[in-house]
Amino acid sequence: MTKVNVIITPKGSILDPHGRAGEAALKSRGYAVERVRVGKFIEVTVPEEDREKAKALVDKFCTELLVNQAMEDYRLEVEE
Amino acid sequence: MTKVNVIITPKGSILDPHGRAGEAALKSRGYAVERVRVGKFIEVTVPEEDREKAKALVDKFCTELLVNQAMEDYRLEVEE
Repeated sequence: MTKVNVIITPKGSILDPHGRAGEAALKSRGYAVERVRVGKFIEVTVPEEDREKAKALVDKFCTELLVNQAMEDYRLEVEE
Repeated sequence: MTKVNVIITPKGSILDPHGRAGEAALKSRGYAVERVRVGKFIEVTVPEEDREKAKALVDKFCTELLVNQAMEDYRLEVEE
């Protein structure tokens, strides 16, 4: 088994309403905060021992299904 | 400015419907996948140059507002 983490972030040019809401909520409590961006963190465990093959497989999952590449960027991290 | 990443994952004992949906969708396409867990990834930029102070501040944001500790675990990573 190999666990691959997918980190998905809204593209810089895209409005991120969840982030804006978090920013506003923190500011309304008096905190100094510059920017909040909210994305997704997906842990995918695949039955593959080879780390490179596992990463390539999860990359395929991302482009086919998990990530909306018009609005989101993503990166992969293979867990040790 | 310091950017602190907050990685939020559903607690192991909690049902994760988004993860189950992702798992089912991948399996229905014929992919071998063991487990999918869906959490959140929040980038918080604070006007604080000291990395430790920035991390402590964002930790406070998490416990006060960003994380539901009954259902979610979280960890912080200060960006280089």
